Amino acid sequence: MPIAIFDMDGVLYRGAQVMPHAREALDRLRSAQWDVFFATNNSTATRMDYLRLLQQLGLGGDLDHIVTSGYATAHYLERRRPKPKDVLVIGADGLRQEIRAVGIAVRDADELPGSHPPPEAAADGVDPGAMRRYLVSLELPPAPDTVVVGLDLHLTYAKVAEAQRAILAGADFICSNRDRAYPVEGRLLPGAGTIVAAIEVATGKKAVCIGKPEPFLFEEAIRRAGKEDGRVVVVGDSTDYDMVAAHRVGAVGVLITTGLTEKESLQKASGDAVPDRVIGSLEDLFVLPEFAGV
Amino acid sequence: MPIAIFDMDGVLYRGAQVMPHAREALDRLRSAQWDVFFATNNSTATRMDYLRLLQQLGLGGDLDHIVTSGYATAHYLERRRPKPKDVLVIGADGLRQEIRAVGIAVRDADELPGSHPPPEAAADGVDPGAMRRYLVSLELPPAPDTVVVGLDLHLTYAKVAEAQRAILAGADFICSNRDRAYPVEGRLLPGAGTIVAAIEVATGKKAVCIGKPEPFLFEEAIRRAGKEDGRVVVVGDSTDYDMVAAHRVGAVGVLITTGLTEKESLQKASGDAVPDRVIGSLEDLFVLPEFAGV
Repeated sequence: MPIAIFDMDGVLYRGAQVMPHAREALDRLRSAQWDVFFATNNSTATRMDYLRLLQQLGLGGDLDHIVTSGYATAHYLERRRPKPKDVLVIGADGLRQEIRAVGIAVRDADELPGSHPPPEAAADGVDPGAMRRYLVSLELPPAPDTVVVGLDLHLTYAKVAEAQRAILAGADFICSNRDRAYPVEGRLLPGAGTIVAAIEVATGKKAVCIGKPEPFLFEEAIRRAGKEDGRVVVVGDSTDYDMVAAHRVGAVGVLITTGLTEKESLQKASGDAVPDRVIGSLEDLFVLPEFAGV
Repeated sequence: MPIAIFDMDGVLYRGAQVMPHAREALDRLRSAQWDVFFATNNSTATRMDYLRLLQQLGLGGDLDHIVTSGYATAHYLERRRPKPKDVLVIGADGLRQEIRAVGIAVRDADELPGSHPPPEAAADGVDPGAMRRYLVSLELPPAPDTVVVGLDLHLTYAKVAEAQRAILAGADFICSNRDRAYPVEGRLLPGAGTIVAAIEVATGKKAVCIGKPEPFLFEEAIRRAGKEDGRVVVVGDSTDYDMVAAHRVGAVGVLITTGLTEKESLQKASGDAVPDRVIGSLEDLFVLPEFAGV
């Protein structure tokens, strides 16, 4: 059975809007006995959250065909030797849940050092000395053995400080992904890569990255499909993330250019980032030779 | 009158502890008619705060002989054409005060978009979707024309997002300094450079940096002393910051190796980072030829 791996946001939907021909394309592939996977760098939600979203949008799918960077990170940790025992997550609860689901202990966000400053220290734009005194006065617990960084919409300075302390004390440093930006309705927000960069500068150490452009996400899908030598096609909207990761697992990379950004990055792409095929709409998938007869 | 510029923290004091021979060295230089300046990359406190600290520690000095990266940043902004009219500071109130003191409007920390999330969005480690919905629902004010980044112990994700929005909308991007770490009593905390890195990744833009190793701080001291061709000696504990900046203004760079870190970095230093002189204690200053007869 050939495998198709779809990036989700920007390819199959944008916010609450299903992209043209998305439902039809997925149905047609499934009818032709393709194994259809969904892969996202977003680590804030669990696979269950994505399953609900895909079903709400009428895109089908099941848990076994969804791979998130949070999920792949959890399985990466599970396979490490020695296996982590005590993980600090700078990220969302979805990432914590995925790691706990493989039996690894994760610290609660609400109990990290610095998470409950007294009112005078918490007051912003008044006296940074009060915050410094509070942070310096904390009784610090033993450092965790592993730090995992993902997108954290509740990021604080105290969290960056705790990650810095742990990594300088020798903790392993893993990140779910390095996305620069997080596209939401009508604007961009900072991506996980911004938080990773801050902690890399604070520690002078480089994180091991799990999400695209690293191959782990797609490898997990291929492993799940149970065949590592058949035809694999990746459909994504990013040259630097989706196309590079596709080529690292030997897949055919199909770039879908639904916005100006994709066309610009296509012109600049070189090496592994150059797509094998470029389409303007999901309908065009079926004129590609990879999908002949589907 | 020859000029001596001292880095402060780690050279003249460490926390509340005055370094050996610091008072005597400063007194001896002043008695011999040297112009003695104090220069720090720290942007969280105002020059007035430093004046109080120096006086508490018995190190003398006056406002005119203190240069902070916050102060230098304010004067850099004042000299820009067009002059900034509306500045977003991701940093401490000391930095805001220095910029307001040169007559430039700065937004209040407490009124930035995203600074008052409702309880369900503020709850950490529960539902990042609630925070996303809150951030996406904000009515955003017109973007500021300039973003200034310094050390911000009250950093939040919403602040990084606001800086990203402003810079992507075309705001100038300035930072007080790029220090990786902020040494405090008994530990390290993240430095301003960690926050700068996050915003650089979020925007794909590079900040103009004012603090050491850039020459602006020392240039300001030399300009203040009113002579740009006399002897200038910089005494600092960092090769990459103090020595590099010293050489960029044509000063003699004296490295003081009071800790293991300085000795290690001395071994690795190359180019402008290599000190002209190395001393183990402030007492040894006076055996250097630069201070002959003092």
